[in-house]
Amino acid sequence: MKIGVDAMGGDFAPEAVVLGAIEAQKQFSDVRLVLIGDKARIEEVLVREGADIASFDIVHTDQVIEMGEHPVKAFSSKPQSSIAIGFKLLMEDKIQGFASAGSTGGMMVGAMYTIKQIPGLLRPAIASPIPVSLDKKAILLDVGLNPDCKPEVLVQYAMLGSVYAQYVLGIENPRVGLLNIGEEEEKGSILTQATYGQLKDASGINFIGNIEGHDVFHGKADVIVTDGFTGNVLLKTAESFYGLLHKEGIRNEFFEGFNFENIGGTPVLGVNGVVIIGHGISNAKAIKNMIKQAIDCANGGIVEHIRENLQ
Amino acid sequence: MKIGVDAMGGDFAPEAVVLGAIEAQKQFSDVRLVLIGDKARIEEVLVREGADIASFDIVHTDQVIEMGEHPVKAFSSKPQSSIAIGFKLLMEDKIQGFASAGSTGGMMVGAMYTIKQIPGLLRPAIASPIPVSLDKKAILLDVGLNPDCKPEVLVQYAMLGSVYAQYVLGIENPRVGLLNIGEEEEKGSILTQATYGQLKDASGINFIGNIEGHDVFHGKADVIVTDGFTGNVLLKTAESFYGLLHKEGIRNEFFEGFNFENIGGTPVLGVNGVVIIGHGISNAKAIKNMIKQAIDCANGGIVEHIRENLQ
Repeated sequence: MKIGVDAMGGDFAPEAVVLGAIEAQKQFSDVRLVLIGDKARIEEVLVREGADIASFDIVHTDQVIEMGEHPVKAFSSKPQSSIAIGFKLLMEDKIQGFASAGSTGGMMVGAMYTIKQIPGLLRPAIASPIPVSLDKKAILLDVGLNPDCKPEVLVQYAMLGSVYAQYVLGIENPRVGLLNIGEEEEKGSILTQATYGQLKDASGINFIGNIEGHDVFHGKADVIVTDGFTGNVLLKTAESFYGLLHKEGIRNEFFEGFNFENIGGTPVLGVNGVVIIGHGISNAKAIKNMIKQAIDCANGGIVEHIRENLQ
Repeated sequence: MKIGVDAMGGDFAPEAVVLGAIEAQKQFSDVRLVLIGDKARIEEVLVREGADIASFDIVHTDQVIEMGEHPVKAFSSKPQSSIAIGFKLLMEDKIQGFASAGSTGGMMVGAMYTIKQIPGLLRPAIASPIPVSLDKKAILLDVGLNPDCKPEVLVQYAMLGSVYAQYVLGIENPRVGLLNIGEEEEKGSILTQATYGQLKDASGINFIGNIEGHDVFHGKADVIVTDGFTGNVLLKTAESFYGLLHKEGIRNEFFEGFNFENIGGTPVLGVNGVVIIGHGISNAKAIKNMIKQAIDCANGGIVEHIRENLQ
């Protein structure tokens, strides 16, 4: 298996990306990493770190989509950007997954313009694994791609999340909870009220009902379905709690699960390929885990399983 | 000043309510508390605790709106319930604030049927003070009353929150942030995009722009405006974090600010009286702080200030 990594993506690229890739290469020696970016700068870090250059593929480019650029314009006007090349390789199946800590907008445009979304899907989602105990994770989606959702979209998210939970997190018959502001079916917003009934009737979904904010990190559900607005606020709030704990000097194994460095990246679910978006401030550890996320999704065959569910 | 307290409200009533009232009476000796509920049971706790019965008003009733009851039906069919009597006293200005840890639905129906909302207001809100540093709070609203909001409603929430921040939290010219999933004006849901422009143009509002999930507990804004769906999820998630810390045996002064016992209750803003809703599981400490919340709101004259703003 080959995984493409945007060596120019993120605030500390290419340094942090190459360092993370070296770590990943040690840990996942059966996977070949394809580093896309400035060859000279990539090799400089590899040599300095005493890594074997021959154990990596390097695809040279010196074009980069910067964080502030308009994603659509940037993607069209920079066909040699690391993100554009990554998606070209992914489309041609020369890599089995592509990960970047660069422009999220650029990554989404790249995904939608090249590999495209899976037929039958209404909207893709960005999903985030979240800790629910020391050794267990759940998946929360959407965390920011679609702030305004229709019930039909949320029902498909339940399926997307279930596939991830089953084939990446290894949870059989994952329990799907609808994030809401009350337990009862009639509680909530117009959206959640309408979604509840559809989820109850959806085949292949192990819907356990509404879950509330206080249930999210307690493992009540394996898949937490919500619109991209609520999911994004929830995720960023959780991350900030980890930051507050850190600031207060509190170290705790469970709460380390909220550290984005340990999560690494969030998969884009519903597109025709494994696409992982990392945090802009990713350090080497975060990059290593972003690559792990790509490997796990590719190994789990999530794209194929999602396709089957949409047929 | 007199503050009415629903002695029958909450899972541990009347025991916990009376114990909390005794504590509040000691701390705020210039305020007279009116305990509404089963006189014999209230006096039993007062006597057992060695409290001076004469330092409280007791209004007897043995009717209670239970947590599971339909609020509208229960309020109409139980005119002698502690909640109905509380609102009657509030409407007649015999008490200057009313607090209950009983049925939230019953409290809202009581407020809307008796004292009613302030003319000119579109929808009242439930607001929650949240900690942003060891000695500073912000106010988050709505936290559950209106899951679906229009931009005009959120603009009024900015005003409601500003009044609370200024006259209860003591913050001059409070900074209002719109909870969103990006900093830029064009980011967010249809609702937040439409609200941004209206908040920018609203007179008397110190609008500082969008704030994100990770900004909420960092003091970036004094007033955090959001719909009742997002606010409810955010608040319950924050409370559960406190619970998780507690479970992990982590004690920290800052995080104690997330303990509902220290917050006590959430004010209903936009109605013609001071109304405080406490947590159903309130213990004596939570009740004491719920009463403090009522006193602070009455002393701050929030109802009058909100009325002025709506004229």
